[in-house]
Order: sequence, then structure tokens, then C-alpha cells
Amino acid sequence: MDDLLSRLLQGDRRAVARLITLVENGDPAAREPIRKLHEYTGRAHILGITGAPGCGKSTLVNALTKELRRREKSVGIIAVDPTSPFTGGAVLGDRVRMQDLATDPEVFIRSMGTRGSLGGISVATNDAVNILDAFGKDLVLIETVGAGQVEVDIVKLAHTSVVVTMPGGGDEIQALKAGIMEIGDIFVVNKADREDAGRTYTEIMMMLEMSQRDEEWVPPVIRTVATTGQGVDQLADAVLDHYRYLQERGLLEKKARERILAELQEIINRRVERTVARALAEDPEMVELVRKLVETREIDPHSGAQMVISHLLRKSEV
Amino acid sequence: MDDLLSRLLQGDRRAVARLITLVENGDPAAREPIRKLHEYTGRAHILGITGAPGCGKSTLVNALTKELRRREKSVGIIAVDPTSPFTGGAVLGDRVRMQDLATDPEVFIRSMGTRGSLGGISVATNDAVNILDAFGKDLVLIETVGAGQVEVDIVKLAHTSVVVTMPGGGDEIQALKAGIMEIGDIFVVNKADREDAGRTYTEIMMMLEMSQRDEEWVPPVIRTVATTGQGVDQLADAVLDHYRYLQERGLLEKKARERILAELQEIINRRVERTVARALAEDPEMVELVRKLVETREIDPHSGAQMVISHLLRKSEV
Repeated sequence: MDDLLSRLLQGDRRAVARLITLVENGDPAAREPIRKLHEYTGRAHILGITGAPGCGKSTLVNALTKELRRREKSVGIIAVDPTSPFTGGAVLGDRVRMQDLATDPEVFIRSMGTRGSLGGISVATNDAVNILDAFGKDLVLIETVGAGQVEVDIVKLAHTSVVVTMPGGGDEIQALKAGIMEIGDIFVVNKADREDAGRTYTEIMMMLEMSQRDEEWVPPVIRTVATTGQGVDQLADAVLDHYRYLQERGLLEKKARERILAELQEIINRRVERTVARALAEDPEMVELVRKLVETREIDPHSGAQMVISHLLRKSEV
Repeated sequence: MDDLLSRLLQGDRRAVARLITLVENGDPAAREPIRKLHEYTGRAHILGITGAPGCGKSTLVNALTKELRRREKSVGIIAVDPTSPFTGGAVLGDRVRMQDLATDPEVFIRSMGTRGSLGGISVATNDAVNILDAFGKDLVLIETVGAGQVEVDIVKLAHTSVVVTMPGGGDEIQALKAGIMEIGDIFVVNKADREDAGRTYTEIMMMLEMSQRDEEWVPPVIRTVATTGQGVDQLADAVLDHYRYLQERGLLEKKARERILAELQEIINRRVERTVARALAEDPEMVELVRKLVETREIDPHSGAQMVISHLLRKSEV
């Protein structure tokens, strides 16, 4: 497998594709290369792009990638769909959509679903981002479908988070207000050629003014029409500006630290989850505990949780 | 606190509201009543209702509740917004929206966000559902905003999962195909007075025909107009039919078991998460490990996870 890593480091795209597939499938053969890869990471600018389905996010990622290529940046794209069991590039028509990018050797596109990811979609996504980082991509774009907690968790690990909205998305704006407003470094009103785009723009500006942010960075709100490319150069400017801001304030290290700690926490969680599931299914003492929880209800889930933990600690099985 | 539980069991609504607030805030005072409550649960029909923002889900929940009241069922409603830091009934205008229900003593409505829920939104939601179950509600409706993984996780713990769509939601239907199709027991095309409602109905029917389901239950697809109440009686029929189906096939026990095991797993995860976070921040050996992960990159996250687990096991600290 060292061979796979060295091929990857030498720029072999097929080695990249192969390693991501191993990660997705939870294949033990991925472990060693992923471990060794860590020291080659930390150079890419990681960009998270989120927004409700239908806002044109994918087309925007496509247009932004072209603009970044024009500026001679190499780009990796991970399109994550936490609700999809499918993987490998076929989700939501990504492959067709991005066909014009696929022939560019400086662009690497990959879709990820949840198929074999025993370790969890977040862990697999992080591994894939690290692979593209070690592969030498200047920017790695993580595009997520939807704006649920998993998506937010994935995107908040990026250096720069772009939140995409569209005109007339009343409920979406409400949802933004509630949860995503805090994580956005850049806001986009896509489909800005629609007549009610101005109102959406104003709403976001007002919300940003009201929201308390503990950073000096003032998130720009950018109007784009992804299908024509309008506004995409400003978006590229904002993306690169934000990275420069992080660099100048010494915030890149802080972000890198948060990212690695979250990665660590996620790996531990998924491992504990697997161990607990196995114990509950196979360990006679735990099977009896489950019976008391479910059938007689003499033990409640909170007390049960404490018992499972004590049991695993006693057996040193985590 | 026993007083709180006994007041709840005697039908005191304020005791219910108070206990849910304690749960939301992660207040230790909730522990004892929540534990004792377990033996009074398992009687309510738990209904999960999910769908993309804007599909009229909340209005539908409102109309369905009125229809269920007409059939003399008591109803509890938990509106969950995993992306919202707000709690206590004010999310997305729930309070206003459901004002006409709020005066009915047989209906209890509560919104939940993620404010103080150290234990995680899923754990707090489960506790709230159990509270309303013990309180004696015939049906407990869990309404979630969005259709991300957290929402799916919450809703799949219900006895009956209702997936709400609307006409023209091209991307939403795609998302359905990918992830939510499998969890839906009942599908609704809301806003069915729109002209493209027929196409959406046909699309869902086709997808259901193609999808492999390991149950005998054939999910009905119901056209509703939540604002006028059209189709809502059929929806109520389908909901009660599904519960009868589960009862007759002896599937209620299976569902109860899955629900409690998922609850247990979730409580354990959140506890491990807190322990790990504390160790990484405070334990000198772990602080040094983090330094090696982040600064020198001589340890990678996967190896680091193993080291954290071994360390915690050695110290018996989980």
C-alpha cells in the first residue's frame, strides 16, 4: 500500500481515486496510507459550500472552479450527500454536470455517499479532503447537499464556509437565521436575475448586521447567476480574500487545530458506536441488559448507558 | 423531583413543560424523573413527520392534529429544529402557527432546538417524546425541519414515518429517492391543488414501485392541501391503519426495541464525546498528544484516536 501513497504523492490520479474508494468502503487497506498521509496535509485551502437543494449550489461550484482554474489554482471537489447510499461520482448527476471540468488534469471531482462508510460519512469525507490536500490541490471544495446538522458539521471544518441561498426561499432564510448564519464566512444569493433577489439580499444583510460575530471578518453577500457566470469572479475574490485574512491574523493554525480535534472526536465516536453495537448484540451480559430495558422496562436508557460503559471499561473493550 | 413526576402522571401540564425544559437545559434535576418515567412509556403511537422546508409540513401537522382530535385522540407535538439554537416554543413561528390548538387541553405542543442540549438534540428529543408518552398522549408527533441525517435519525425512531413533499420539488424528489424513500411509511404530496401535483404523485408512485422493501406494508401516497384540510382525513386514516398493521403483525415490539437501543447508543455516544473533549483539553498527556497531532503532525488522527481510547481505558474514565 505504500506504493499507493507514493504514486499519489507523485501525482497519479488513479491512486487518488483508488484510495478514496478504499476509504469509502471502510477497507482496512486504507489505514496505513491514510496514516502516513497526515504529514503531507495542511497546505490546501479547504472551502465548505452548503445550501438547500435547488439553490443552484452545484452549478455554482462548477462556475467557481472554472474561475479558480483561470487564476491557475488547482482544485479538488468532494460532493457529499449524507442521505445517499450511493457513491463514486454518480450522485445527483454530478458526473454529467461536471463533465466539462473532468477533462482538466488540475481538477479532481469525487462524490461521496454513505454506502460502506462504517466509520461515518464525516470521517470518510475528512479522509478524502486530506487525500486531495496531500495530492497537492491548492483548494479543496466540499459541497454538501442540504443544510442539516451533518452538513453543518462537515462544512464548519472548512477554512472558509460559503452559504448559498436563492431568492424567495422564505423558509430557507429562516433556517439560515437559526443555524447557518454563524458558520457562514461568505453568503451568496444565487439566481440573482430573479426579481425578488433584492429582497433576499437585503434580508441577509440585515441578519448579518443583527448577528453577533466574534471575528473581525465581515461576511460579504454576493449576488451570482451561476448559469451565466455573473458574480462568480467576485465570489472567487471573496474566497481568496478570506484565506488571506486567516493567514494574516494567524487564524489558519487555529482552524487546523479545530479541524483535527473534530476529526479525532468523530473517529472515536464511530469506533465506540461499533463496539457498543457489537456488545449489545453478542455479549450475554449485555443481551440480558437489553431485555431488561425493552421487555420489563425495569432499566431505563440513561441507567442502561452507564451500565454498558462500566461493562466495557471492565472488559477493556472499546 | 419525584413530585414533578407524580404531578406529570396526574395530568399536570405545567409539570410536563417544566420537565422538558430541564431536559433541554441538560439540568441534572431531570435525571431522576426521566429514569423513573421509563416504566410508564411504551403506550403512545409515535409519529415522525419530515420533509424539506417550505413543503407546508407545519400546517399539515396542524391540520392532522385537528383531525386526530376529532377522532378523540389526544396529541403531543415535538417540533425539532436541529439547526436552531432556540428552544421553548418560539422556533419558526410555531407558537403563532398553532395558536388555535394551544387552547385544547388534549394537545401539548413544544418546540426544541439545540440550546443547552449537551446530551445532543436526539437524546433530548427522545426524552421529550417519552415524557409525552408517560403523560398519556395517544399520539406523539415529532416534526423535524429539513431532511438531513439528524432528522432521518430522529424520525426513523418513530412507529410511523410520514414523508411530506410538494409539487415541483425536483431536487427534493431526487433526495427522496436517495435517502428518505426507505424510511417512509406514508408519503404526502402537499399543496396538491398546484398544477404539477400529478407529476410529483406519479414520480413517487414509480419510485415506490421500483424500491425494494422488506415489509408487507405498501406505503400510501396521499394528496393533501393542508391549508384547506383536503386529504387530511385520508392521512389520519393511513396513520391509524399503519399502527394497526404494526400491532397485528407483532411489529410494535420490534420497533420499541429498535427505538430503545438507538436511544441507548445515542446517550453513550454523547457521554463519550464529553469525556474525550474534557480529556483533550485538560489531561496533560492528552494535551501533548494534541500538540503532536496538530503542530508536528507526527501522529495522525486515526492513530491518535486509538491512543485516546487506550488512555481513557487505562484511567477508567469514560
